[in-house]
Amino acid sequence: MSAAQVWSVDPRTGKQRGQVAVEATAGEVDSAVRAAHAARAALADRTVRAAFLRTAADLLDEAKDGLVAEADAETALGQVRLTGELARTCYQLRAFAGIVDEGAFLDVIIDHPDAEATPPVPDLRRYKVPLGVVAVYSASNFPFAFSVPGGDTASALAAGCPVVVKAHPDHPGTSELVAAVLRRAAAGHGIPETVIGLVHGFEAGVELVGHPLITAAGFTGSVRGGRALFDAAAARPVPIPFHGELGSLNPVVISEAAAAERPEQIGTGLAGSMTLGVGQFCVKPGLVLAPRGEAGDRLITSLADAVGATAPGVLLDHRMRDNFVQGVAERAALPDVEAPVAPGAGAVPPHDGEAAEHTVRPGFLTVPAARLATAGAHDLLLEECFGPVTVVARYEDEEQVTAVLSRLPGNLTATVHLSSDETEGKGNGAAILAELTPLAGRVLVNGWPTGVAVAPAQHHGGPYPATTSTSTSVGGTAIERWLRPVSYQSTPDALLPPELREDNPLGLPRRVDGRLEH
Amino acid sequence: MSAAQVWSVDPRTGKQRGQVAVEATAGEVDSAVRAAHAARAALADRTVRAAFLRTAADLLDEAKDGLVAEADAETALGQVRLTGELARTCYQLRAFAGIVDEGAFLDVIIDHPDAEATPPVPDLRRYKVPLGVVAVYSASNFPFAFSVPGGDTASALAAGCPVVVKAHPDHPGTSELVAAVLRRAAAGHGIPETVIGLVHGFEAGVELVGHPLITAAGFTGSVRGGRALFDAAAARPVPIPFHGELGSLNPVVISEAAAAERPEQIGTGLAGSMTLGVGQFCVKPGLVLAPRGEAGDRLITSLADAVGATAPGVLLDHRMRDNFVQGVAERAALPDVEAPVAPGAGAVPPHDGEAAEHTVRPGFLTVPAARLATAGAHDLLLEECFGPVTVVARYEDEEQVTAVLSRLPGNLTATVHLSSDETEGKGNGAAILAELTPLAGRVLVNGWPTGVAVAPAQHHGGPYPATTSTSTSVGGTAIERWLRPVSYQSTPDALLPPELREDNPLGLPRRVDGRLEH
Repeated sequence: MSAAQVWSVDPRTGKQRGQVAVEATAGEVDSAVRAAHAARAALADRTVRAAFLRTAADLLDEAKDGLVAEADAETALGQVRLTGELARTCYQLRAFAGIVDEGAFLDVIIDHPDAEATPPVPDLRRYKVPLGVVAVYSASNFPFAFSVPGGDTASALAAGCPVVVKAHPDHPGTSELVAAVLRRAAAGHGIPETVIGLVHGFEAGVELVGHPLITAAGFTGSVRGGRALFDAAAARPVPIPFHGELGSLNPVVISEAAAAERPEQIGTGLAGSMTLGVGQFCVKPGLVLAPRGEAGDRLITSLADAVGATAPGVLLDHRMRDNFVQGVAERAALPDVEAPVAPGAGAVPPHDGEAAEHTVRPGFLTVPAARLATAGAHDLLLEECFGPVTVVARYEDEEQVTAVLSRLPGNLTATVHLSSDETEGKGNGAAILAELTPLAGRVLVNGWPTGVAVAPAQHHGGPYPATTSTSTSVGGTAIERWLRPVSYQSTPDALLPPELREDNPLGLPRRVDGRLEH
Repeated sequence: MSAAQVWSVDPRTGKQRGQVAVEATAGEVDSAVRAAHAARAALADRTVRAAFLRTAADLLDEAKDGLVAEADAETALGQVRLTGELARTCYQLRAFAGIVDEGAFLDVIIDHPDAEATPPVPDLRRYKVPLGVVAVYSASNFPFAFSVPGGDTASALAAGCPVVVKAHPDHPGTSELVAAVLRRAAAGHGIPETVIGLVHGFEAGVELVGHPLITAAGFTGSVRGGRALFDAAAARPVPIPFHGELGSLNPVVISEAAAAERPEQIGTGLAGSMTLGVGQFCVKPGLVLAPRGEAGDRLITSLADAVGATAPGVLLDHRMRDNFVQGVAERAALPDVEAPVAPGAGAVPPHDGEAAEHTVRPGFLTVPAARLATAGAHDLLLEECFGPVTVVARYEDEEQVTAVLSRLPGNLTATVHLSSDETEGKGNGAAILAELTPLAGRVLVNGWPTGVAVAPAQHHGGPYPATTSTSTSVGGTAIERWLRPVSYQSTPDALLPPELREDNPLGLPRRVDGRLEH
């Protein structure tokens, strides 16, 4: 029996581009994990791993043209978007190098002995150590930023953890190219190339999460796939943390006053956000609560104009296109649902060399909010539909808004559009924010959720099913996922790791006897 | 059908003291959780909840005599130990009040807009919000410090989360008394008494972890019970974090040089630690690696003298006593296992009013370390045995130490005893510490693991099965378990919570544009 072949496919034509790998057997997964585990000591030195992350960014920058061309051929996401995504990925690697340098993530806490405490406190020195090999599951929709060199990998390496990445079948060629670049960066700093493992195949992904030497996992993908892997992680003899980003509806509330103040601006902005990247962002606004009445009607008209003028696009693969076409048809067929611009299968090839049968048309649906206020068939509209579609629920009053919001599952983001007066604190803007906060990990005012900044204060996560844990996969605190604390008690300076020595030779920020120092 | 009665039992005599409650039905669990959920807004103000925690400590202090008497009658842990435990519990409540006041746990991070970043960074302001109602599962062996008013409850309330506690059947009367005190403290600050729920019964505990409004759980107990609840938490439609402390062997390594330097001191110290509280501490040293040869023999002799002179004691309940008697018998029957002081059923009543058939005799077993270096029947010696027994594995060389350590599951603590030279950095003390660090959450040099200080740098947790997560149940960072981050994007100051406003009206420590400020 020969190993299953892994092919690169052009989503614009549906044609195979070439075989790039074979699916990993259980034995090959085992070898990759063991080799990564054996390489972990090479990441112990923070100076070395910060330098490694920076070199990885530099080499990815250098290889940009080839990487973007390969990723575009496999994903149809376009050169502009992919060039930006790769730049973001390199920025992220460098940001984590800075975080490694600073060392605040080590959370150093030192307590000197205190005989007066109840019970007495001995000398205690705590910091965080890397967990071990991390499994990273690549996303379909970000061949760079949430895949082989993405936030999970960057934050795990920054924490001192080797990684074994499960490649996404939508971009296996890109995955191989990028892994080779990362390995070259490792080798340049004396780190074994096996610090970055890469495996292909569904079964390999299942093997990976169950491997005894895997200590944690990061995942970006669907609710179904993510939940299956989460369950497998929890069912292990030794359960491991599973940080999965699964699905999000990303509700948007447009206040009456905001709709009255700037209906066209909001309608056009929404069109841009929901069609960006052919609607394939996990933070795409998927449910919009807009008021009934004239202002809301003008908003809908602007939205229709802008969405109607948006070209068809190619989704990442055929399965997604089928799901989209079927998903929007099922939603549009529900009672009282209208489609001012009907989403669905594309009729015309948007660009040279693209086949019409592989494109989809963006569109949106409307429904009375009352239909969503109680359980029923319309609950389908409260499920994420991947692709360029959104649902606008027209509300009569604030009670309907509250009723719909109370029925939503967890989200990555929740947004409110307010009028100028409301943003200044007049009206009930703060009350709406308080209603949105329990629903999401990021709450926006007068913005659109697409575009996830890489920044210390970013939080890309939210109540389940947005994420399976309380952590983030973007931003500086993403590093916390791959660490665990250890306290050393009554340990003489000569035996302590330098991070915990009394004279703070590494100049780390720390808490000493209860006081923050830096 | 009438509700199952909950009886308080005197472990010294095995006699029922009186009925104190009934087991909660599913409906009663639901009511308790809903009432706790409804009370959550009353905990939103940090000033109020810090004051509440301090009042709780004050009222527990005031009620000390009655609480200690009730707890002693139910647990036989003794007035001295229980008085100390209650003092520790009050200290812990006050420590969390201080943590609430300081506000560093909110992890405020603020990024001002940066158009130069890739992608551009909008105004982002992150802090942490309480998860919601927390389920707390009380421990048998700490009727105060790890039960109704213990670390899980104190840290959850400090985070702003109401709690519903599952009482331990070994001290239902104490649980009721303490809950009443906490509720009185709440009422004194205008907080609904339902902020502290209390339920009895095994089935109630299962209902609790599955309740849709429960957002996280804290647990201290056995591997079997904890794993079943962990599995239930993970299998929910919406999984929740389950922070369980399950079991720990707490290995101790005695270096050759340490044994040669102070064999009697180490033997006597070990006897004190393993028999403390009748061996009913989760951090009891359960496996000791001591060298063969004369120094090791002297250590064993001292250990035998001290353990042999230790009075029998009463375990928390009859099931534990049966498990202990059976567990030590099974272990002692293994080939090459010797019992210089045989542990087992007690023959004489240790104190007035105690019945002999309810006591156990402390003791210890020895075994050649080679027996533990490979898998086999002796693996039983690598499982925790609750009660006053430890296993001393005699090693021939360092390779045997490494071989045994490599076979251990995760632990709360790992300890090494070194000679004076070794503590100064001569010899391989640092290498042994490096070997112990992956095994445990707290690593000790020349000390004993019993006695868990309540301090910012404490870490009471470790690789599974020590704990089911990377968090701690003791120390300042225990509060992190009950919070999740939220970022506000482009949100005007007028609508922000005060914790995130530009001028920092609450004077919180924070990270602004990447820089730590306090």
